[in-house]
Amino acid sequence: MKHALTVTREQDFAAWYQAVISEADLAEESGVRGCMVIRPWGYGIWERIQKLLDAEIKATGHENCYFPIFIPLSYFEKEAEHVEGFAKEMAVVTHHRLKSDGHGKLVPDPESKLEEPLVVRPTSEMVIGAAFARWVQSWRDLPVLINQWANVVRWEMRTRMFLRTSEFLWQEGHTAHASAEEAREETLRMLEVYRRFSEDCLAVPVVAGEKPENERFPGAVATYSIEAMMQDGKALQAGTSHFLGTNFAKAQSISFQNNQGQQELANTTSWGVSTRMIGGVIMTHGDDDGLRVPPVIAPYQIVIVPMLRETPEDEAVLDHCKALARELNGLAAFGEPVRALVDAKAAKAKRWTWVKKGAPLIVEVGPRDLAAGNVALIRRDRLYDANGKLASAFLARGDFVAQAPALLEEIQAALHGEAKARLEANITRGIADFAGIAAHFESAGKFAGWVEVQWARPTGADLDAVAERLKTLKLTIRNTPLDAPAADGACVFSGAPAVERILVGRSY
Amino acid sequence: MKHALTVTREQDFAAWYQAVISEADLAEESGVRGCMVIRPWGYGIWERIQKLLDAEIKATGHENCYFPIFIPLSYFEKEAEHVEGFAKEMAVVTHHRLKSDGHGKLVPDPESKLEEPLVVRPTSEMVIGAAFARWVQSWRDLPVLINQWANVVRWEMRTRMFLRTSEFLWQEGHTAHASAEEAREETLRMLEVYRRFSEDCLAVPVVAGEKPENERFPGAVATYSIEAMMQDGKALQAGTSHFLGTNFAKAQSISFQNNQGQQELANTTSWGVSTRMIGGVIMTHGDDDGLRVPPVIAPYQIVIVPMLRETPEDEAVLDHCKALARELNGLAAFGEPVRALVDAKAAKAKRWTWVKKGAPLIVEVGPRDLAAGNVALIRRDRLYDANGKLASAFLARGDFVAQAPALLEEIQAALHGEAKARLEANITRGIADFAGIAAHFESAGKFAGWVEVQWARPTGADLDAVAERLKTLKLTIRNTPLDAPAADGACVFSGAPAVERILVGRSY
Repeated sequence: MKHALTVTREQDFAAWYQAVISEADLAEESGVRGCMVIRPWGYGIWERIQKLLDAEIKATGHENCYFPIFIPLSYFEKEAEHVEGFAKEMAVVTHHRLKSDGHGKLVPDPESKLEEPLVVRPTSEMVIGAAFARWVQSWRDLPVLINQWANVVRWEMRTRMFLRTSEFLWQEGHTAHASAEEAREETLRMLEVYRRFSEDCLAVPVVAGEKPENERFPGAVATYSIEAMMQDGKALQAGTSHFLGTNFAKAQSISFQNNQGQQELANTTSWGVSTRMIGGVIMTHGDDDGLRVPPVIAPYQIVIVPMLRETPEDEAVLDHCKALARELNGLAAFGEPVRALVDAKAAKAKRWTWVKKGAPLIVEVGPRDLAAGNVALIRRDRLYDANGKLASAFLARGDFVAQAPALLEEIQAALHGEAKARLEANITRGIADFAGIAAHFESAGKFAGWVEVQWARPTGADLDAVAERLKTLKLTIRNTPLDAPAADGACVFSGAPAVERILVGRSY
Repeated sequence: MKHALTVTREQDFAAWYQAVISEADLAEESGVRGCMVIRPWGYGIWERIQKLLDAEIKATGHENCYFPIFIPLSYFEKEAEHVEGFAKEMAVVTHHRLKSDGHGKLVPDPESKLEEPLVVRPTSEMVIGAAFARWVQSWRDLPVLINQWANVVRWEMRTRMFLRTSEFLWQEGHTAHASAEEAREETLRMLEVYRRFSEDCLAVPVVAGEKPENERFPGAVATYSIEAMMQDGKALQAGTSHFLGTNFAKAQSISFQNNQGQQELANTTSWGVSTRMIGGVIMTHGDDDGLRVPPVIAPYQIVIVPMLRETPEDEAVLDHCKALARELNGLAAFGEPVRALVDAKAAKAKRWTWVKKGAPLIVEVGPRDLAAGNVALIRRDRLYDANGKLASAFLARGDFVAQAPALLEEIQAALHGEAKARLEANITRGIADFAGIAAHFESAGKFAGWVEVQWARPTGADLDAVAERLKTLKLTIRNTPLDAPAADGACVFSGAPAVERILVGRSY
């Protein structure tokens, strides 16, 4: 069977991923190292993510703020003392003016050298902490629950669109609380917001759990993640939530007078998701014909393609399509108005353009359909019939309109169901020792999925040794699922009585 | 009469402006030169602006994209050749790593010096132009209609919150068209979107018109602006729209094959508004008690303050307030759901907090009101009665709910009406010569407003001479209003027959 992309998942998953991004017009190289241009279809998906997740973040009591893109170098010195795993790869601003070099070139003007260099924010943890220290005086000021949507920069040596770019877009939530208990609750509340958002909106099933000590955010008391399984069996960490205890409050002097008049340190949390999620959507739902966008996050859920032939009939066809779009846009799916678009551009091969972009429903209307009162419908999640032929079905216009919202909801459920089945089928359980893990990942070939094993939760040097052993197999511990059954066996690494179950796999 | 702010507009307008920003919790200094922290109430206003304006931008056919924050230095060399008035004050990234200096300090790692420095975008004109050159091949690809919401950085020596900050938030629209006519229409269409948005949403009356040649965006064929009058009589340029002709297309090779098979340059436009608009809202609607936020852009339109006394009655009061908020949120004003908030925080003096923030309606409910079925209502745009006493009126709860949407619409209209009357009352007409302009601005004292005069539209050196003369009075030409009557007199600068009318004033 011939497909719309020139490379399939089976042939070369990494090349296929790039092909989807390019053919679906999601993003492109910008000419600036590690930075991408997010094109309208890709950015439209991000806008849907922002809109839906922002509503959840606000519904849980958070307010949005905006903090500066620049952070003075000295803020990082505090951090560097405090934090071992401090990442130093950052964009550093050292000058504030350009001048001509006298030979037609521009150079940073030496006279504009900054006394203190500025770092382009890799995260706003430090400036937000400094603001919290100003804002929080009394127990009456707590909790502080804020969020920021922003761009951040981490200088990455090896970049990959959406998954790891030098600049990316994200939201970062930061909160301060009067008690550790309240802060822990907040950490888990936001993890659950991410889990539900991923399942319900992205149709990406995930496992929510706690990261092992060696994978914690530097300075965190506990780090939680949601982990999704990509179609090549690798894990993608799609969101994290951190309980920071009083560690950051101590470093940044976030203290308050409690209602007994005593001075206390606040307990803080932070949590974030980024444009990386779009990479997860691609590798979860894409197929050999391009992307399939879950209807909840599709910029347009229904694309109507008028079959224009530069004849006098074109106008009637176009009018008909516009009327159809208006009718569809008056309906609701998932509790929101349906988003239908008429693509009246003069371009060619529009059907395949929208197949590759992954519009959930593609409707074609030509002069004959107009006369017959029909539409030709392509359902992107079931592109081919049993004979491998493109499944374009004729429907009476009225029937299609009546079914459209339910069809969209069915596609959303189908995409989720497919991914959920894959996730469940590819977690291997019952492996008793390290040799079993090695055997699994060696024999399963390209697609090994994850293993769920039991362990004694070693710490410090013992944990490092475990991580080293796993690394020889290119494996990492993903997380300890929150909903896993209690341990009932021996640790796969030490043979000691196990205390919990963990997921192990390859990852992005 | 005593007011909530310690400084009045009359005493010191600039200090008053800072006091409003601080007392209304809109923004604060960040500790980073020229960059501000936008706090939830200020950012909430920006979110309202974004939401409403974004809908207009999309309704006129534009799609959002995202382009990199970094622009290679060499892009500016092209620009520097092309453009005379090239601004060189920009943040320049020269290194991508920090390292310890061995004495507890961090320094940019010399080994991480970039081969080509990167500039933090002052605008995305150049990267977007480069993308257009890739995207546009044929007439079929036109028009390209895109927009970006982003942060930009211009290194400013003298900064002022919202009005002029080193980093600010904005939207920048960029479009490419097959003909000059179409691009001109686009330029004026977006100017009109800004004008209507400013009037209808911000309640800020503006004059839309063309900037004189010497105030054009460098490289533009024509620049248009909307100009608002602040309460000190100064003008604030609140938005601009540029017709760029083929100038940028030539510099950036944005060309296409027309439908006759010939190669042509595209005509381009760009247009933008920024967080500066919030400064305009403050200086248009603020009073000596703080900000007054127009209901359309108020994050919360109605704030309900339960009068809690740490007694058992508190719970009933709080429940009552929550039920009231739910009821209000089920209503619609301005075609959207009403936004009501219960402020249950344990803080003190909440009434005055919300007066200073400028919530349009403030409702107080205590145990006695509960029993009587009343609410106490403060209308922020009419804070005092004729005797200078705070006008808090008791209303039956049901009556208040029934009136609330109309009240909000009335406040919006009242704020707009007040500002519109001020604008109209303070444009002086009929001045015949330059001496008359000088006399007006010298005799009118602090509050001189603007003058509308006639001129012969000089160009080049003649225009520069006019600008120099005006500069001696600290004046600039704001714009040529699109809706001004035709000229019928002599040029105030040269005595030659006038060709049009212009607005002249002091400005931010």
